Amino acid sequence: MSNKKNKYLFNRVLIVGIGLIGSSIALSLRKNNIAKEIIGFSKTKKTRLVAKKKRIVDKTIEKISNQISEIDLIVICTPLSTYEKIFSSIDPYVSKKTIVTDVGSAKSQIIRQFRSNKSRVFDFVPAHPIAGTEQSGPNAGFYELFIDRWCIITPISENKKRHVNIVKKMWKLMGSNTEMMTPERHDQTMAITSHLPHLIAYNIVSTAADIENVTKSDVIKYSASGFRDFTRIAASDPTMWRDVLLSNKDSLLEVISRFSEDLSMLQKAIRWDDGETLYKLFSKTRKIRNKIIDAGQDVNIPDFGRLKKRK
Amino acid sequence: MSNKKNKYLFNRVLIVGIGLIGSSIALSLRKNNIAKEIIGFSKTKKTRLVAKKKRIVDKTIEKISNQISEIDLIVICTPLSTYEKIFSSIDPYVSKKTIVTDVGSAKSQIIRQFRSNKSRVFDFVPAHPIAGTEQSGPNAGFYELFIDRWCIITPISENKKRHVNIVKKMWKLMGSNTEMMTPERHDQTMAITSHLPHLIAYNIVSTAADIENVTKSDVIKYSASGFRDFTRIAASDPTMWRDVLLSNKDSLLEVISRFSEDLSMLQKAIRWDDGETLYKLFSKTRKIRNKIIDAGQDVNIPDFGRLKKRK
Repeated sequence: MSNKKNKYLFNRVLIVGIGLIGSSIALSLRKNNIAKEIIGFSKTKKTRLVAKKKRIVDKTIEKISNQISEIDLIVICTPLSTYEKIFSSIDPYVSKKTIVTDVGSAKSQIIRQFRSNKSRVFDFVPAHPIAGTEQSGPNAGFYELFIDRWCIITPISENKKRHVNIVKKMWKLMGSNTEMMTPERHDQTMAITSHLPHLIAYNIVSTAADIENVTKSDVIKYSASGFRDFTRIAASDPTMWRDVLLSNKDSLLEVISRFSEDLSMLQKAIRWDDGETLYKLFSKTRKIRNKIIDAGQDVNIPDFGRLKKRK
Repeated sequence: MSNKKNKYLFNRVLIVGIGLIGSSIALSLRKNNIAKEIIGFSKTKKTRLVAKKKRIVDKTIEKISNQISEIDLIVICTPLSTYEKIFSSIDPYVSKKTIVTDVGSAKSQIIRQFRSNKSRVFDFVPAHPIAGTEQSGPNAGFYELFIDRWCIITPISENKKRHVNIVKKMWKLMGSNTEMMTPERHDQTMAITSHLPHLIAYNIVSTAADIENVTKSDVIKYSASGFRDFTRIAASDPTMWRDVLLSNKDSLLEVISRFSEDLSMLQKAIRWDDGETLYKLFSKTRKIRNKIIDAGQDVNIPDFGRLKKRK
């Protein structure tokens, strides 16, 4: 852990999973002198080779073993379905001084999994950086990924306050703004701002692929007319998103129901030529866009073909 | 009409409606020396003032009258619900040499409206440029809007072949690629690539605004996690989209049903922890994204916060 004689916040950090997020964290920890030594764990040989070759981490390991002793911080960056196994596999090699944190997009379920075994020795401080791209793997990582993005930390009652503060400090040093909230509030907020949008994007792209009176090549050719905006997030990592959606089942099923009710209402308005209902709703949504731009969460540059060919 | 001694394709063009599309067409006709004189019609005083001040058109009119005689081409750029009235109001002042074209996003219904009056004198060549931004009004227009975009022309049996070719030539001169198809194929294609995506985007933004256990400020704050991608197209012009969705009712109701069926299937998969169904679907959609990038309809730059603060 950090002390006054050491410029680093951590001596040894273990990154579990060297994908887009794991590799970006490793690169940012190095760039910002946050960790002295960074070890990367991956079961995949190719990932370990890339991580070493691109000097994303100092050392790679393919198995959790006593090599990970004297680790100050472990960051879990693998899909949510792997956590239970990871918790169990690290337990024999860590102490109560070891902070374990993560980057998962749903929190309540993994906290239940952490608590399901009363003999865990480490302190688990759940966190979720609101950052990412639709790309995945160690080649997709870059150290700037977290700059000016939010990182939500959802402390649990078992946490040592000092440990929560260290996790917070790490994210601030990587350039993020941090926010504390309960796991429940986190999961409800993400259900509507992230999990439902991803599910809907996956769904509409799949629906389009199956329509038999429109050819796939026409769908692709004319995708700039709206469809394209959905395909970006529908290209996100399938394993990660399968796990996220299943891990936030309760909040997600609630917002799916709301969405479907609202869609039925619009469907009925279209069927009965109720232009007033459509107009009112479409005016309301425009205002929300303006608020997002005001909040600096997007830029007000009209998007037309990604400006690629603008002369 | 064009002749060998005249470098212009048209002597006089009337743009009906000087919004984003109308003003962009006017600017492009001028920039590319396609029309000698461009007249802009708008009922709104402010729009006429902007159009004049920014020299978008040579002259503005507020009423369809004999001022529009000797017009070669009329381009209707107003919401679809106005067409019937416009057809009737121009009829007394045009000849059978006058080409009337448009930019509307749904074709079958307006063609029915055109045909509902057997005594129309002009030739109506329906067209639809697949171009636009989420902004509207004469200030949003720019001449490059159509460069490298598709313009779909849906000729009808009444059209003179020469007139269809002139409309095609105009779009090519403005930098577009043109495609011919039947109005039915156009409407089915747009239902899935454009109209459903817009409806879904409007719907999800509205659902988010109504969720009472998540604050609006949290929705906006964490919108980068997926929601933001939907808000852009949900900020499109409400009047235009009300008209588009109501004008393509049959094709749209069909794709809404498909979408809802598919969503119910995903909802059930989530409820019953059926990760395999989710994984298979999420892998399929990723492939479609890759095809869109291969087709040059989007660029494969990972999108994170619109790259605004990347250093």
